[in-house]
Amino acid sequence: MSRLINVTELILRDAHQSLLATRMALEDLVPACEILDKAGYWSIECWGGATYDACIRFLNEDPWERLRTFRRLMPNSRLQMLLRGQNLLGYRHYGDEVVERFVQKSAENGIDVFRIFDALNDMRNVRTAMEAVRRSGKHAQGSICYTISPEHTTGHFVELASQLADMGANSICIKDMAGLLKPAAAYELVSAIKEALGPEMPVHVHTHATTGVTMVSLMKAVEAGADAVDTSISSLSLGPGHNPTESFVEMLEGTGYRTNLDMKRILEVKYYFNQVKPRYSRFLTGFTGVETEIFESQIPGGMISNMENQLKQQGAGDRIREVLEEIPRVRKDAGYPPLVTPSSQIVGTQAVFNVLMGRYKVITGEFADLMLGYYGATIGAKNPEVEDIAIKQAKKQPITVRPADLIPPEWDQLRAEAIAIPACNGTDEDVLTYAMFPQVAPKFFATRAQGPKNLSKEPVPTETPAAGPRKGITEPVTYMITYEGKSHKVTVAPAA
Amino acid sequence: MSRLINVTELILRDAHQSLLATRMALEDLVPACEILDKAGYWSIECWGGATYDACIRFLNEDPWERLRTFRRLMPNSRLQMLLRGQNLLGYRHYGDEVVERFVQKSAENGIDVFRIFDALNDMRNVRTAMEAVRRSGKHAQGSICYTISPEHTTGHFVELASQLADMGANSICIKDMAGLLKPAAAYELVSAIKEALGPEMPVHVHTHATTGVTMVSLMKAVEAGADAVDTSISSLSLGPGHNPTESFVEMLEGTGYRTNLDMKRILEVKYYFNQVKPRYSRFLTGFTGVETEIFESQIPGGMISNMENQLKQQGAGDRIREVLEEIPRVRKDAGYPPLVTPSSQIVGTQAVFNVLMGRYKVITGEFADLMLGYYGATIGAKNPEVEDIAIKQAKKQPITVRPADLIPPEWDQLRAEAIAIPACNGTDEDVLTYAMFPQVAPKFFATRAQGPKNLSKEPVPTETPAAGPRKGITEPVTYMITYEGKSHKVTVAPAA
Repeated sequence: MSRLINVTELILRDAHQSLLATRMALEDLVPACEILDKAGYWSIECWGGATYDACIRFLNEDPWERLRTFRRLMPNSRLQMLLRGQNLLGYRHYGDEVVERFVQKSAENGIDVFRIFDALNDMRNVRTAMEAVRRSGKHAQGSICYTISPEHTTGHFVELASQLADMGANSICIKDMAGLLKPAAAYELVSAIKEALGPEMPVHVHTHATTGVTMVSLMKAVEAGADAVDTSISSLSLGPGHNPTESFVEMLEGTGYRTNLDMKRILEVKYYFNQVKPRYSRFLTGFTGVETEIFESQIPGGMISNMENQLKQQGAGDRIREVLEEIPRVRKDAGYPPLVTPSSQIVGTQAVFNVLMGRYKVITGEFADLMLGYYGATIGAKNPEVEDIAIKQAKKQPITVRPADLIPPEWDQLRAEAIAIPACNGTDEDVLTYAMFPQVAPKFFATRAQGPKNLSKEPVPTETPAAGPRKGITEPVTYMITYEGKSHKVTVAPAA
Repeated sequence: MSRLINVTELILRDAHQSLLATRMALEDLVPACEILDKAGYWSIECWGGATYDACIRFLNEDPWERLRTFRRLMPNSRLQMLLRGQNLLGYRHYGDEVVERFVQKSAENGIDVFRIFDALNDMRNVRTAMEAVRRSGKHAQGSICYTISPEHTTGHFVELASQLADMGANSICIKDMAGLLKPAAAYELVSAIKEALGPEMPVHVHTHATTGVTMVSLMKAVEAGADAVDTSISSLSLGPGHNPTESFVEMLEGTGYRTNLDMKRILEVKYYFNQVKPRYSRFLTGFTGVETEIFESQIPGGMISNMENQLKQQGAGDRIREVLEEIPRVRKDAGYPPLVTPSSQIVGTQAVFNVLMGRYKVITGEFADLMLGYYGATIGAKNPEVEDIAIKQAKKQPITVRPADLIPPEWDQLRAEAIAIPACNGTDEDVLTYAMFPQVAPKFFATRAQGPKNLSKEPVPTETPAAGPRKGITEPVTYMITYEGKSHKVTVAPAA
């Protein structure tokens, strides 16, 4: 009678990434696993995004061990990860062999569903990962980053979805990372993709609660034929996080749609995380309401507080509004990239520089790379004046090829470098850790034997100002600024 | 092209009642008024509910002066109030003349739109107020309290709406005070009322955000033909409050519906209240997420923390779950009243008593009155065993007439009592203050000349335990327990 809507649970990954700066220790996630495993989800998202980074940087935890633990504790569930295409989980492009090995190892260690995206929607950057997943026999979910600009039409998104289908995608994800997907747009986009790719291609909708409209968008997506949605159990939901799982289930009552979810188990998990959450209060996002201004700036809520902190450290805390107005200009100059890791940080940081030092007086290395095609192609034309400045400042020429085509085979070199590090265990997994986080990996390998840290059980560091900002320099945005040895005037990275 | 949806803004009344225990001082509301007045609302709700009570009990502020201030500052707006039918803004039934004088004075002082409801949906209890509003030439909005029970069908609600229309209602409000109205139900109910009363009768939907589904319900209500909705600007929204105004506006983009709202002005008000809110943090509800368990217990979120505090004071803080399970039983025994002030407090408190002392070993005076018809008729049959206990404990017989029919003319008596109080200014407004709050009025009259208090600017009382509950005995639930001189074993009222 009613149509089944599949649900992916986000509480083990994106929820605490969006709300608790990805700081939750494995031991605090473990007690929920057995319950989640029997709660009727289509998949449990539990890896990828910033979890790998946070594990080795802050939690002294081997991310591969985290994955194996989830695999052991949730034998009945599809485990899902988020993968940034040719970037993997790092912040640069990798050679194809590195991508292939990463996918292979992730599949071996327990991932069933790979959600793959490219920040610029340059589908050349997802092809290698998609094909590797197909070869592994796992589920390849091709993703479109949803954004709004004069260039982004429904037809364009449908074209991207078709490219993903041609690559062998098992399903298509509409990835709305900032809560920009409004109800009417959701209906139109899902309908158009279903129309173009046929009813057999599952369409999955990922969205954030930031703007307060996306629960309605999920309803409209379902009405338009969406097969699955992402939600998070309410204890870690809303604000820059996601729509609550329980509310989604209740919302469908009487609508002709249903989930397979077992509400009793879900409420058990809710109560459990309600108990855990207060221990992590120092990592909790300060922003838990809604922000419709994001429809203008397109900067995700969590990042605004970040930029405010960057500005405060420069004695310019009062200039956040100028920065928010500058961001759409910078984005336009760069050819309207979607704003998602890493493009959101690149555009946001450049906007800060423009406000503090004059427009494009200083261009970050990453912004130059974005302008010159080193992250891939953007949908819109670039501002040629800004492109010229980038060429001069970065002393690089623009490229039009797929960025990874310029990367010579690097696996053997990375492997040699990795195993030379004391305490590297010699596995491909460790090589991948080094490949993605070359600055952090050596320290992590050295301390790994001490076992995972649970930051929620440690005393709050005394250097933290009592009334200071809760997030700030603990956020991934900071790591963009100093990679590949390029130095910039603003340094906001925490001492790693 | 697109259909206009009218919006009532709640930030001056229900928003801070739901989120800040109604404690916001007039001086903190005043700076928003001029902006709101030009922002394109259909009406501005700014009076009624618990504001009157809070003004005289906590803020040393004359509620009539508050109303006149709003009237002066918002000359272009319809000012709206919430009126509990024959209860007015107090907690007992009043004689018809008192109701008539209250309506007349409210109209004279500035109210344009009277939203009138009865907690039991006993339409006999709203008739006098409705007719008085009609005579005053103001807008009479008849309200149906939305609830869920085996007795509450769409047909029943439509019948109530028809009764209100017959009384001359200028519009019908579906009042969903606990966030129970799901999308499919909203669509069905609005469609049915529109069908029954015709397209010319405006249907207005009031709902709370508590369960996380009602933004979708507003969308569905609009699709079904609703003419107006209630929202609150985001700085005071969500949790036990309401859906955010900005999100509602954005949600409609491209749907074929629009509002008249001016987003720039609305964001100005948002930023303003974002600045004000932290000063009131000690009154802020501890609960800001979603609670779908309310679909079972039907107890509004704010009240759950209240009952937890009641239980803690009895050394039974661990028994909240038993109470939440007891509430639906008590409600059934009472003939399925909607749970809204005062019935929510009456049923909730009785459930606490049942858990602590054994089922119906002690019946509160208010619960006996509810069982015996002294608040009006309920939709369902009462449990005859419990009715017998109520008769014995309260030493009263059940009634079937309209409760106010048993009240002899009382205006002259109330007037005589009021003007005998030192510092009563002799106006009908002061008599009404005394009539509704006989215990509090004398103290208020005595201190009125000292001028309003702004609790957000006062030092936090030292007796407040630092880590203690934020709401607790500051909530209206407590005032039910000792009125009319009946005493009960649990006393949770703050020293007035």
